[in-house]
Amino acid sequence: MRLLATKHPNFAADFADLLTREGSAPQVGSAVAEIIARVRREGDAALLDYTSRFDRVNLTPETLRVSQAEIDTALACTSHELREALTLAARRIETFHKMQLPSGIEFTDDEGATCGMRWTPLDAAGLYVPGGKASYPSSVLMNAIPARVAGVRRLAMCVPAPHGELNPLVLAAAHIAGVKEIYRIGGAQAVAALAYGTASIRPVDRIVGPGNAYVAEAKRQVFGQVGIDSIAGPSEVLILADDSANPEHIAIDLLAQAEHDEDAQSILITTSGPLASAVASAVEALLPTLPRAAIASASWANNGAIILVHNWDEAVDLANRIAPEHLQLMLAEPDGLFSQIRHAGAIFLGHTTPEAVGDYVAGPNHVLPTSGTARFASGLSVYDFMKRTTYLSVPPHALAAIGPAAVALAEAEGLTAHARSVSTRLGKT
Amino acid sequence: MRLLATKHPNFAADFADLLTREGSAPQVGSAVAEIIARVRREGDAALLDYTSRFDRVNLTPETLRVSQAEIDTALACTSHELREALTLAARRIETFHKMQLPSGIEFTDDEGATCGMRWTPLDAAGLYVPGGKASYPSSVLMNAIPARVAGVRRLAMCVPAPHGELNPLVLAAAHIAGVKEIYRIGGAQAVAALAYGTASIRPVDRIVGPGNAYVAEAKRQVFGQVGIDSIAGPSEVLILADDSANPEHIAIDLLAQAEHDEDAQSILITTSGPLASAVASAVEALLPTLPRAAIASASWANNGAIILVHNWDEAVDLANRIAPEHLQLMLAEPDGLFSQIRHAGAIFLGHTTPEAVGDYVAGPNHVLPTSGTARFASGLSVYDFMKRTTYLSVPPHALAAIGPAAVALAEAEGLTAHARSVSTRLGKT
Repeated sequence: MRLLATKHPNFAADFADLLTREGSAPQVGSAVAEIIARVRREGDAALLDYTSRFDRVNLTPETLRVSQAEIDTALACTSHELREALTLAARRIETFHKMQLPSGIEFTDDEGATCGMRWTPLDAAGLYVPGGKASYPSSVLMNAIPARVAGVRRLAMCVPAPHGELNPLVLAAAHIAGVKEIYRIGGAQAVAALAYGTASIRPVDRIVGPGNAYVAEAKRQVFGQVGIDSIAGPSEVLILADDSANPEHIAIDLLAQAEHDEDAQSILITTSGPLASAVASAVEALLPTLPRAAIASASWANNGAIILVHNWDEAVDLANRIAPEHLQLMLAEPDGLFSQIRHAGAIFLGHTTPEAVGDYVAGPNHVLPTSGTARFASGLSVYDFMKRTTYLSVPPHALAAIGPAAVALAEAEGLTAHARSVSTRLGKT
Repeated sequence: MRLLATKHPNFAADFADLLTREGSAPQVGSAVAEIIARVRREGDAALLDYTSRFDRVNLTPETLRVSQAEIDTALACTSHELREALTLAARRIETFHKMQLPSGIEFTDDEGATCGMRWTPLDAAGLYVPGGKASYPSSVLMNAIPARVAGVRRLAMCVPAPHGELNPLVLAAAHIAGVKEIYRIGGAQAVAALAYGTASIRPVDRIVGPGNAYVAEAKRQVFGQVGIDSIAGPSEVLILADDSANPEHIAIDLLAQAEHDEDAQSILITTSGPLASAVASAVEALLPTLPRAAIASASWANNGAIILVHNWDEAVDLANRIAPEHLQLMLAEPDGLFSQIRHAGAIFLGHTTPEAVGDYVAGPNHVLPTSGTARFASGLSVYDFMKRTTYLSVPPHALAAIGPAAVALAEAEGLTAHARSVSTRLGKT
């Protein structure tokens, strides 16, 4: 953990260093390019071969897809408490994302031209769900429900099954979220199959969901053939806290982020030296009590930070420069700072709103822009599963009013056919 | 030009062939990677060297940026008619994009949790404008105005000046659109400078605008460091027309697309054999009268097509499979088909609404998804220059209601610190 203070002469360099993240190594790029090319060329055969090699499971075109019987079994194995929890989460996530549903626009202007824009859902979306240890049912809900709310007709989910094992809760969550088409594949080969299709898997229009460096690179490479969501980096939390906050609550929140993986980053910014010390001590005290202590310790040691600032203006400025994925405002009066935050994936207000309640059940999405990309990117939403078509209707009298300007500009650009496409119609009005 | 008919036995293969487009060659990828790496390493020095090599113009850090005097001169050289046309276009584009401005959401649910989402503009956007022959003032308006309407504070525009030449109308359009920060650079080096910054050019948050294969590949490679818009392919138009349409109007509209570049694609779908013949003849008659006949001929010969269908259901199905960038419905009653189109960048309704009027002055954006990407992508908009932050406020009684479900799910996922981050607060409520 690094202890920084804005009053230190080295602060600017230390702060820049804290935010330095590296992208995927070049060898990932060429390995992924080869996997994608082979899946495009050989289809299912390549998919089955890579799955056998990387996931140590031998599949056939018939067993690629998870059967309804397996989904039923997974549901039957899920405790009543967890089913209820997934259902409550699904209902709340659905409510929030329904509020996002956008309206089209249409208006007729003074010249008589009608301009409009309408939103329509994608035909098919691919959901990538990581396998193994980081296979989270909550992510299935967060990816699938916005797509379903958007009106996407077909959802195809890929989840790798290392050594043949699937997390039954992932299948239960898929069922609750209305996903029926599930393939037990992962990695760059799954992304390639979703983008280009094989004999067994029809292609989709957009692929969303987090994954390892190979999955992220594959999404980058298939971008253009299909849409993708943002390329996820390690998860991070930034907490701004004043003396009204409970240091043990801050400590467990920082560790909740740190337990995700060793690259995760937890940062506290405060004006209070005593709070900073108390949180640092509380983290050390809590760490050994966690089952994932090894991961959380490495994350906190390598990427964690506590930053002491003179005042809240400094804190807001740093927060906007970090553009955090998650921002907790553990302040007696969070509203004032809230309005000054320009860049953040999601903001959690007040002492009883830890990020974890948003990770699971609150309603807003937990798939959020990482590594400072909240400067330009947003969390997953219904908009990710819809697109807009603009439209235009120009009756003759409106063309007479605005057409000559189009002709002038087209001629100035040397595009004669454009100009004549308008002028030939003006002659007849 | 290919003449296809759905009744032909080979139609499926011919149609698939018509839509086959190839991506950029692999050597573009490595050349672009090297340019980006060198601009990141050497900054201005690399930028000036590449500009000297590729654009044959020798600049200094002081002359990289276009001066206010140059912009003033360009404005003074612009005819009154063109200034008026640009101003009319700018006003209409602004009106349309203001209608897009989204509202946030906020609601407090039955459990007492407040969920919200707010939209905020990017801090800085980079606008790439192609240079040389395809340097279009209309594209400056279409890229810059949505950014300004979104509330972006800083717009940085790059336009290459081959042999030192800049199109004065591009500078005039930039002035009218409110762009003051203009650099005379282009290619992958300009994209790298906008993404990573140099001593002379501060980095931006998102880069938009079309360019050649190097520019497109550079945008793909810097994606994640900054946001990008879609990667533009050749432009295309699809026209659906019935016997009520004027064949000469259809012909000039097809040629307006074809004159853009040799890779452009113009397709007519009709139920009427006589109309198909009349349009084919009209295209041949009009071609030699165009200044850009060589380009338009090559485009029409290699990529153009007329498709005869049995009925309008077939036409709608093909249109949705093409997912055209531009779709003209030159029908006596276009509304019925309009409602059945699921995938298109922009739709132009009726006989007096040629694409060209939308290209310049109507209001909707002319930067649109190409190559079938309208399946998942949309035209440029204010949304491209904004991002969303979700927020959450959970008072103690709401945490008591929904917290236990979060604890159950976190424990099921093996994320103990997540669970305790919620449960430690439940103890006190």
